[in-house]
Amino acid sequence: MPKPPHILAIRPAPATSFLHIEQVDLEFSNGERRTFERMLPSGLGAVMIVPMLDRDTVLLVREYAVGVERYELGLPKGRIEPGESIEAGAEREMKEEVGYGAHRLLHLAALTLSPAYMTHHTHVVLALDLYPERLPGDEPEPLEVVPWKLAELHALLEHHEVSEGRSIAALFMAREHLAGRYQP
Amino acid sequence: MPKPPHILAIRPAPATSFLHIEQVDLEFSNGERRTFERMLPSGLGAVMIVPMLDRDTVLLVREYAVGVERYELGLPKGRIEPGESIEAGAEREMKEEVGYGAHRLLHLAALTLSPAYMTHHTHVVLALDLYPERLPGDEPEPLEVVPWKLAELHALLEHHEVSEGRSIAALFMAREHLAGRYQP
Repeated sequence: MPKPPHILAIRPAPATSFLHIEQVDLEFSNGERRTFERMLPSGLGAVMIVPMLDRDTVLLVREYAVGVERYELGLPKGRIEPGESIEAGAEREMKEEVGYGAHRLLHLAALTLSPAYMTHHTHVVLALDLYPERLPGDEPEPLEVVPWKLAELHALLEHHEVSEGRSIAALFMAREHLAGRYQP
Repeated sequence: MPKPPHILAIRPAPATSFLHIEQVDLEFSNGERRTFERMLPSGLGAVMIVPMLDRDTVLLVREYAVGVERYELGLPKGRIEPGESIEAGAEREMKEEVGYGAHRLLHLAALTLSPAYMTHHTHVVLALDLYPERLPGDEPEPLEVVPWKLAELHALLEHHEVSEGRSIAALFMAREHLAGRYQP
Protein backbone atom coordinates (compact mmCIF):
# COMPACT_ATOMS: atom_id res chain seq x y z
CA MET A 1 0.00 0.00 0.00
CA PRO A 2 1.79 3.19 -1.15
CA LYS A 3 2.29 6.26 1.04
CA PRO A 4 0.30 9.29 -0.14
CA PRO A 5 2.21 11.82 -2.26
CA HIS A 6 3.71 15.00 -0.88
CA ILE A 7 2.23 18.35 -1.97
CA LEU A 8 5.06 20.50 -3.34
CA ALA A 9 3.08 23.62 -4.32
CA ILE A 10 -0.44 25.00 -4.83
CA ARG A 11 -1.22 28.04 -7.02
CA PRO A 12 -4.18 29.55 -8.90
CA ALA A 13 -4.64 27.90 -12.29
CA PRO A 14 -3.77 29.91 -15.43
CA ALA A 15 -6.43 30.75 -18.00
CA THR A 16 -5.16 27.84 -20.11
CA SER A 17 -6.36 25.42 -17.40
CA PHE A 18 -8.25 22.30 -18.56
CA LEU A 19 -11.25 23.40 -16.48
CA HIS A 20 -13.26 26.45 -17.57
CA ILE A 21 -16.08 28.42 -15.95
CA GLU A 22 -18.75 30.40 -17.80
CA GLN A 23 -21.82 32.44 -16.84
CA VAL A 24 -25.25 31.90 -18.40
CA ASP A 25 -28.12 34.41 -18.29
CA LEU A 26 -31.53 32.67 -18.22
CA GLU A 27 -35.13 33.80 -18.50
CA PHE A 28 -37.64 31.32 -17.02
CA SER A 29 -41.09 30.79 -18.56
CA ASN A 30 -42.61 32.93 -15.77
CA GLY A 31 -40.37 35.87 -16.68
CA GLU A 32 -37.90 35.38 -13.78
CA ARG A 33 -34.27 35.98 -14.76
CA ARG A 34 -31.18 34.42 -13.19
CA THR A 35 -27.45 34.26 -13.96
CA PHE A 36 -25.87 30.88 -13.20
CA GLU A 37 -22.27 29.69 -13.46
CA ARG A 38 -21.28 26.33 -14.87
CA MET A 39 -18.07 24.40 -15.46
CA LEU A 40 -17.13 23.28 -18.95
CA PRO A 41 -15.25 20.06 -19.58
CA SER A 42 -12.24 20.28 -21.87
CA GLY A 43 -12.52 16.84 -23.39
CA LEU A 44 -14.82 14.24 -24.86
CA GLY A 45 -16.31 12.99 -21.61
CA ALA A 46 -15.28 10.38 -19.12
CA VAL A 47 -15.81 6.65 -18.91
CA MET A 48 -16.26 4.58 -15.74
CA ILE A 49 -16.02 0.79 -15.95
CA VAL A 50 -17.71 -1.91 -13.84
CA PRO A 51 -15.31 -4.83 -14.51
CA MET A 52 -16.87 -8.15 -13.43
CA LEU A 53 -14.21 -10.78 -12.71
CA ASP A 54 -17.05 -13.29 -12.35
CA ARG A 55 -20.83 -13.01 -11.93
CA ASP A 56 -20.49 -11.77 -8.32
CA THR A 57 -17.10 -10.03 -8.12
CA VAL A 58 -16.31 -6.49 -9.28
CA LEU A 59 -12.75 -5.15 -9.50
CA LEU A 60 -12.24 -1.81 -7.74
CA VAL A 61 -9.09 0.35 -7.78
CA ARG A 62 -7.46 2.35 -5.03
CA GLU A 63 -6.06 5.62 -6.42
CA TYR A 64 -4.75 8.88 -4.97
CA ALA A 65 -7.30 11.70 -5.36
CA VAL A 66 -5.87 15.20 -4.99
CA GLY A 67 -9.32 16.81 -4.59
CA VAL A 68 -9.69 15.12 -1.20
CA GLU A 69 -5.95 14.54 -0.55
CA ARG A 70 -6.26 10.82 0.23
CA TYR A 71 -6.64 7.48 -1.55
CA GLU A 72 -10.13 6.71 -2.87
CA LEU A 73 -11.50 3.21 -3.53
CA GLY A 74 -13.83 3.09 -6.52
CA LEU A 75 -14.38 1.99 -10.09
CA PRO A 76 -11.65 2.43 -12.72
CA LYS A 77 -12.24 5.49 -14.90
CA GLY A 78 -10.61 7.91 -17.28
CA ARG A 79 -11.11 10.34 -20.12
CA ILE A 80 -12.17 9.30 -23.59
CA GLU A 81 -9.41 10.11 -26.09
CA PRO A 82 -9.88 11.70 -29.53
CA GLY A 83 -11.09 9.16 -32.10
CA GLU A 84 -12.07 6.63 -29.43
CA SER A 85 -15.55 5.17 -28.95
CA ILE A 86 -16.95 4.91 -25.41
CA GLU A 87 -16.35 1.14 -25.44
CA ALA A 88 -12.78 1.47 -26.77
CA GLY A 89 -11.99 4.04 -24.07
CA ALA A 90 -13.48 1.74 -21.43
CA GLU A 91 -11.39 -1.23 -22.54
CA ARG A 92 -8.18 0.84 -22.73
CA GLU A 93 -8.71 2.22 -19.21
CA MET A 94 -9.40 -1.30 -17.88
CA LYS A 95 -6.19 -2.63 -19.40
CA GLU A 96 -4.22 0.30 -17.95
CA GLU A 97 -5.75 0.34 -14.47
CA VAL A 98 -6.80 -3.24 -13.65
CA GLY A 99 -4.87 -5.36 -16.19
CA TYR A 100 -7.87 -6.92 -17.94
CA GLY A 101 -9.67 -6.59 -21.27
CA ALA A 102 -13.30 -7.69 -21.79
CA HIS A 103 -15.03 -9.78 -24.47
CA ARG A 104 -18.38 -8.11 -23.67
CA LEU A 105 -18.99 -4.40 -22.99
CA LEU A 106 -22.41 -2.86 -22.30
CA HIS A 107 -23.14 0.89 -22.03
CA LEU A 108 -25.20 1.12 -18.83
CA ALA A 109 -25.79 4.86 -18.40
CA ALA A 110 -24.52 8.42 -18.89
CA LEU A 111 -24.25 9.94 -15.41
CA THR A 112 -23.88 13.62 -14.59
CA LEU A 113 -21.83 14.96 -11.68
CA SER A 114 -23.82 18.05 -10.78
CA PRO A 115 -26.20 18.95 -13.61
CA ALA A 116 -26.97 22.31 -11.96
CA TYR A 117 -23.48 23.67 -12.68
CA MET A 118 -21.49 21.06 -14.60
CA THR A 119 -21.87 19.91 -18.20
CA HIS A 120 -19.81 16.73 -17.61
CA HIS A 121 -21.07 13.27 -18.52
CA THR A 122 -19.56 9.99 -17.34
CA HIS A 123 -20.41 6.93 -19.41
CA VAL A 124 -20.81 3.81 -17.29
CA VAL A 125 -19.74 0.61 -19.06
CA LEU A 126 -20.32 -2.89 -17.69
CA ALA A 127 -17.44 -5.23 -18.65
CA LEU A 128 -18.01 -9.01 -18.74
CA ASP A 129 -15.96 -12.03 -19.85
CA LEU A 130 -12.61 -10.56 -18.80
CA TYR A 131 -9.20 -11.74 -20.02
CA PRO A 132 -5.80 -10.69 -18.64
CA GLU A 133 -4.08 -7.97 -20.66
CA ARG A 134 -2.11 -4.98 -19.42
CA LEU A 135 -1.40 -1.69 -21.21
CA PRO A 136 1.02 0.92 -19.85
CA GLY A 137 -0.92 3.92 -18.49
CA ASP A 138 0.05 7.42 -17.40
CA GLU A 139 -0.54 6.69 -13.71
CA PRO A 140 2.27 7.98 -11.46
CA GLU A 141 2.18 4.72 -9.46
CA PRO A 142 0.54 1.30 -9.98
CA LEU A 143 -3.05 1.14 -8.73
CA GLU A 144 -4.03 -1.43 -6.12
CA VAL A 145 -6.84 -3.66 -7.47
CA VAL A 146 -9.44 -4.65 -4.85
CA PRO A 147 -12.04 -7.36 -5.64
CA TRP A 148 -15.44 -6.83 -3.99
CA LYS A 149 -18.63 -8.92 -3.93
CA LEU A 150 -21.67 -7.19 -5.47
CA ALA A 151 -23.77 -8.80 -2.71
CA GLU A 152 -21.67 -6.81 -0.20
CA LEU A 153 -22.20 -3.27 -1.55
CA HIS A 154 -23.78 -2.24 1.78
CA ALA A 155 -20.45 -3.03 3.49
CA LEU A 156 -18.55 -1.01 0.86
CA LEU A 157 -20.65 2.05 1.81
CA GLU A 158 -19.06 1.94 5.29
CA HIS A 159 -15.47 1.91 3.92
CA HIS A 160 -13.65 5.13 4.88
CA GLU A 161 -12.06 5.43 1.41
CA VAL A 162 -15.39 5.20 -0.48
CA SER A 163 -17.10 8.55 -1.15
CA GLU A 164 -17.62 9.06 -4.88
CA GLY A 165 -21.32 9.36 -5.73
CA ARG A 166 -21.08 8.29 -9.36
CA SER A 167 -19.00 5.22 -8.46
CA ILE A 168 -21.56 4.11 -5.83
CA ALA A 169 -24.40 4.81 -8.30
CA ALA A 170 -22.70 2.80 -11.06
CA LEU A 171 -22.18 -0.20 -8.76
CA PHE A 172 -25.85 -0.31 -7.74
CA MET A 173 -26.94 0.18 -11.38
CA ALA A 174 -24.76 -2.75 -12.43
CA ARG A 175 -26.24 -4.88 -9.66
CA GLU A 176 -29.79 -3.97 -10.69
CA HIS A 177 -28.95 -4.83 -14.31
CA LEU A 178 -27.29 -8.16 -13.48
CA ALA A 179 -30.34 -9.04 -11.34
CA GLY A 180 -32.53 -8.46 -14.42
CA ARG A 181 -34.33 -5.39 -13.01
CA TYR A 182 -32.76 -2.59 -15.08
CA GLN A 183 -32.14 -2.37 -18.82
CA PRO A 184 -30.21 0.61 -20.22
CA MET B 1 -44.95 21.23 -16.05
CA PRO B 2 -43.06 24.47 -16.87
CA LYS B 3 -41.38 25.17 -20.17
CA PRO B 4 -37.57 25.29 -19.92
CA PRO B 5 -36.00 28.75 -19.62
CA HIS B 6 -34.54 30.65 -22.54
CA ILE B 7 -30.77 31.25 -22.64
CA LEU B 8 -30.19 35.00 -23.05
CA ALA B 9 -26.36 35.06 -23.01
CA ILE B 10 -23.26 32.98 -22.31
CA ARG B 11 -19.84 34.49 -21.49
CA PRO B 12 -16.59 33.46 -19.76
CA ALA B 13 -16.84 33.88 -15.99
CA PRO B 14 -14.91 36.72 -14.33
CA ALA B 15 -12.18 35.99 -11.78
CA THR B 16 -14.71 36.76 -9.03
CA SER B 17 -16.69 33.65 -10.08
CA PHE B 18 -17.96 31.36 -7.28
CA LEU B 19 -16.00 28.48 -8.84
CA HIS B 20 -12.19 28.54 -8.66
CA ILE B 21 -9.49 26.34 -10.19
CA GLU B 22 -6.01 25.74 -8.78
CA GLN B 23 -2.98 23.65 -9.71
CA VAL B 24 -1.23 21.30 -7.29
CA ASP B 25 2.31 19.93 -7.75
CA LEU B 26 2.69 16.43 -6.26
CA GLU B 27 5.58 14.07 -5.62
CA PHE B 28 4.52 10.43 -5.21
CA SER B 29 6.29 8.07 -2.82
CA ASN B 30 8.15 6.48 -5.76
CA GLY B 31 9.57 9.88 -6.76
CA GLU B 32 7.18 10.45 -9.70
CA ARG B 33 5.98 14.06 -10.00
CA ARG B 34 2.68 15.30 -11.46
CA THR B 35 0.76 18.58 -11.63
CA PHE B 36 -3.01 18.19 -11.24
CA GLU B 37 -5.81 20.76 -11.39
CA ARG B 38 -8.71 20.81 -8.97
CA MET B 39 -11.82 22.91 -8.44
CA LEU B 40 -12.38 24.69 -5.15
CA PRO B 41 -15.82 25.20 -3.68
CA SER B 42 -16.67 28.70 -2.51
CA GLY B 43 -18.95 27.71 0.33
CA LEU B 44 -19.49 25.42 3.26
CA GLY B 45 -20.52 22.34 1.33
CA ALA B 46 -23.79 21.07 0.00
CA VAL B 47 -26.59 19.07 1.53
CA MET B 48 -28.83 16.54 -0.25
CA ILE B 49 -31.97 15.30 1.47
CA VAL B 50 -33.80 11.96 1.19
CA PRO B 51 -37.27 13.02 2.43
CA MET B 52 -39.41 9.97 3.26
CA LEU B 53 -43.13 10.77 3.09
CA ASP B 54 -43.75 7.31 4.54
CA ARG B 55 -41.63 4.17 4.99
CA ASP B 56 -41.70 3.41 1.23
CA THR B 57 -42.11 6.78 -0.52
CA VAL B 58 -39.38 9.33 -1.20
CA LEU B 59 -40.12 12.86 -2.44
CA LEU B 60 -38.11 13.87 -5.53
CA VAL B 61 -38.01 17.31 -7.17
CA ARG B 62 -37.91 18.27 -10.82
CA GLU B 63 -35.66 21.31 -11.33
CA TYR B 64 -34.06 23.07 -14.30
CA ALA B 65 -30.32 22.29 -14.52
CA VAL B 66 -28.31 24.70 -16.68
CA GLY B 67 -25.29 22.34 -16.84
CA VAL B 68 -27.29 19.95 -19.02
CA GLU B 69 -29.89 22.49 -20.25
CA ARG B 70 -32.94 20.41 -19.29
CA TYR B 71 -35.03 19.52 -16.23
CA GLU B 72 -33.48 16.93 -13.88
CA LEU B 73 -35.45 14.69 -11.50
CA GLY B 74 -33.59 14.01 -8.26
CA LEU B 75 -33.31 14.64 -4.55
CA PRO B 76 -33.75 18.15 -3.11
CA LYS B 77 -30.42 19.82 -2.34
CA GLY B 78 -28.72 23.11 -1.71
CA ARG B 79 -25.79 24.87 -0.13
CA ILE B 80 -25.21 25.07 3.60
CA GLU B 81 -25.41 28.69 4.74
CA PRO B 82 -23.02 30.41 7.18
CA GLY B 83 -23.81 29.51 10.79
CA GLU B 84 -26.01 26.56 9.78
CA SER B 85 -25.47 22.94 10.85
CA ILE B 86 -25.81 20.20 8.22
CA GLU B 87 -29.18 19.19 9.69
CA ALA B 88 -30.49 22.79 9.82
CA GLY B 89 -29.48 23.30 6.18
CA ALA B 90 -31.21 20.06 5.24
CA GLU B 91 -34.45 21.04 6.92
CA ARG B 92 -34.43 24.57 5.43
CA GLU B 93 -33.87 23.20 1.92
CA MET B 94 -36.69 20.66 2.42
CA LYS B 95 -39.09 23.38 3.50
CA GLU B 96 -38.10 25.56 0.52
CA GLU B 97 -38.11 22.85 -2.15
CA VAL B 98 -40.68 20.23 -1.10
CA GLY B 99 -42.80 22.01 1.53
CA TYR B 100 -42.04 19.67 4.46
CA GLY B 101 -40.02 19.74 7.67
CA ALA B 102 -38.88 16.58 9.49
CA HIS B 103 -38.99 15.47 13.14
CA ARG B 104 -36.06 13.08 12.56
CA LEU B 105 -32.89 13.80 10.55
CA LEU B 106 -30.01 11.33 10.13
CA HIS B 107 -26.64 12.13 8.49
CA LEU B 108 -26.15 9.19 6.11
CA ALA B 109 -22.90 10.03 4.28
CA ALA B 110 -20.57 12.69 2.89
CA LEU B 111 -20.33 12.05 -0.84
CA THR B 112 -17.73 13.48 -3.20
CA LEU B 113 -18.44 14.46 -6.80
CA SER B 114 -15.10 13.71 -8.40
CA PRO B 115 -12.42 13.32 -5.73
CA ALA B 116 -9.69 13.35 -8.40
CA TYR B 117 -10.24 17.03 -9.21
CA MET B 118 -12.94 18.41 -6.91
CA THR B 119 -12.80 19.16 -3.20
CA HIS B 120 -16.60 19.31 -2.87
CA HIS B 121 -18.53 17.28 -0.33
CA THR B 122 -22.29 16.69 -0.34
CA HIS B 123 -23.81 15.66 2.97
CA VAL B 124 -26.66 13.19 2.55
CA VAL B 125 -29.39 13.51 5.18
CA LEU B 126 -32.27 11.07 5.60
CA ALA B 127 -35.45 12.87 6.73
CA LEU B 128 -38.20 10.93 8.55
CA ASP B 129 -41.48 11.85 10.28
CA LEU B 130 -42.30 14.73 7.91
CA TYR B 131 -44.75 17.54 8.63
CA PRO B 132 -46.03 20.15 6.15
CA GLU B 133 -44.25 23.51 6.34
CA ARG B 134 -43.17 25.76 3.52
CA LEU B 135 -40.43 28.42 3.51
CA PRO B 136 -39.92 30.85 0.61
CA GLY B 137 -36.78 29.91 -1.34
CA ASP B 138 -34.74 31.64 -4.02
CA GLU B 139 -35.91 29.29 -6.79
CA PRO B 140 -36.89 31.15 -9.98
CA GLU B 141 -39.98 28.92 -10.33
CA PRO B 142 -41.78 26.44 -8.03
CA LEU B 143 -40.32 22.94 -8.17
CA GLU B 144 -42.52 20.01 -9.13
CA VAL B 145 -42.52 17.40 -6.31
CA VAL B 146 -42.60 13.79 -7.54
CA PRO B 147 -43.23 10.92 -5.06
CA TRP B 148 -41.41 7.66 -5.90
CA LYS B 149 -41.44 4.22 -4.28
CA LEU B 150 -38.05 3.08 -2.93
CA ALA B 151 -38.91 -0.43 -4.13
CA GLU B 152 -39.01 1.01 -7.68
CA LEU B 153 -35.53 2.58 -7.88
CA HIS B 154 -34.69 0.30 -10.82
CA ALA B 155 -37.51 1.97 -12.80
CA LEU B 156 -36.22 5.42 -11.82
CA LEU B 157 -32.86 4.54 -13.42
CA GLU B 158 -34.64 4.34 -16.80
CA HIS B 159 -36.23 7.81 -16.46
CA HIS B 160 -34.81 10.18 -19.13
CA GLU B 161 -34.55 13.05 -16.61
CA VAL B 162 -32.51 11.06 -14.04
CA SER B 163 -28.73 11.28 -14.45
CA GLU B 164 -27.12 12.65 -11.29
CA GLY B 165 -24.71 10.10 -9.78
CA ARG B 166 -24.82 11.40 -6.19
CA SER B 167 -28.64 11.49 -6.21
CA ILE B 168 -28.82 7.86 -7.40
CA ALA B 169 -26.16 6.88 -4.84
CA ALA B 170 -28.02 8.62 -1.99
CA LEU B 171 -31.29 6.87 -2.86
CA PHE B 172 -29.68 3.40 -2.81
CA MET B 173 -27.83 4.24 0.42
CA ALA B 174 -31.10 5.29 2.05
CA ARG B 175 -32.73 2.06 0.89
CA GLU B 176 -29.86 -0.03 2.29
CA HIS B 177 -30.11 1.85 5.59
CA LEU B 178 -33.90 1.50 5.87
CA ALA B 179 -33.53 -2.23 5.11
CA GLY B 180 -31.15 -2.48 8.09
CA ARG B 181 -28.05 -3.32 6.01
CA TYR B 182 -26.09 -0.04 6.25
CA GLN B 183 -25.32 2.13 9.27
CA PRO B 184 -23.56 5.48 8.76
